[in-house]
Amino acid sequence: MDLFEAIKKRHSYRGGFENKPVPRDHLRQIVQAGLDAPSGCNVQTTRFIIVDDADLVQTIAGMHEKNKAFQQAQAFIACIVDEQPKAVYQEMSFQVEDCAAAVENMLLAITALGYASVWVDGWLRVDGRAEAIGQRLNLPAGKRIRVLLPVGIPSEAYKQPAKMPFEQRAWFNQYGADK
Amino acid sequence: MDLFEAIKKRHSYRGGFENKPVPRDHLRQIVQAGLDAPSGCNVQTTRFIIVDDADLVQTIAGMHEKNKAFQQAQAFIACIVDEQPKAVYQEMSFQVEDCAAAVENMLLAITALGYASVWVDGWLRVDGRAEAIGQRLNLPAGKRIRVLLPVGIPSEAYKQPAKMPFEQRAWFNQYGADK
Repeated sequence: MDLFEAIKKRHSYRGGFENKPVPRDHLRQIVQAGLDAPSGCNVQTTRFIIVDDADLVQTIAGMHEKNKAFQQAQAFIACIVDEQPKAVYQEMSFQVEDCAAAVENMLLAITALGYASVWVDGWLRVDGRAEAIGQRLNLPAGKRIRVLLPVGIPSEAYKQPAKMPFEQRAWFNQYGADK
Repeated sequence: MDLFEAIKKRHSYRGGFENKPVPRDHLRQIVQAGLDAPSGCNVQTTRFIIVDDADLVQTIAGMHEKNKAFQQAQAFIACIVDEQPKAVYQEMSFQVEDCAAAVENMLLAITALGYASVWVDGWLRVDGRAEAIGQRLNLPAGKRIRVLLPVGIPSEAYKQPAKMPFEQRAWFNQYGADK
């Protein structure tokens, strides 16, 4: 799929999924897109666990009270960062940015291959969910799931949310109005 | 360009640029890709300033002591966030993630259109650089440049940095080894 088409088509999908597994070659291709994303000082901090074991998928899927895409996921991709990120440039770490860039690449890959997903992030940080899922996936101490992507073939039409127009968010040469 | 080709081809470019302006329709298309990126709760927090005024470009370009792509940029794209981001989900803000996803979309668009760039981030946070450039771009109080992308047509071959193999960063169903 053309890059710009994938960018336009990608949107957060919270609908149901068909009951069809996602082949491993597609899951690998999606995660490879994440591995190819940029990272601060090329340190490549993000790690990935692809969850496609039926029992594990079901256990994780059952944890969400209302996100249908999560509940009916055929696979999950967990994006893992360090709890105490090391500095890579002066005093700074870029693990949050590294992970987000990888997630965006994967969302585009998911779209291009005919699947759908939604970026699950804040939900994980509440009520010990990241920790509980991390335990199931044998995360070592110091590692933490930052983002979880449910993956599947969308089974329903799901409205793409509206975006603000260009002029309200972008300008030439100065803030707030073209110059 | 095909999505997966753009993802493979994108890399941090710190070489020189040809002395040719980037047309505004391309700059708009690149920033539109950023606007199309996901954001936490679809709040669309990131703002963008496209710098293509020759004097402004020259002033900003002159601030970097060694990044040739920065020094020879034909245009810059500044990505702007709030200094004190508002919470959008429970106590959380996702402005860093929002901005990173937008940057990744724009880097892919830059690649697909035949340009090159490099994600300039940590450098901005040192020695008051973000503030100094923000002043030039008339940023209102409370807004801050988080990322700056130099844009131009690459004028030299620049080695794409090596990436770790899949098996060292990604596994099926548990951390560190497939299961």
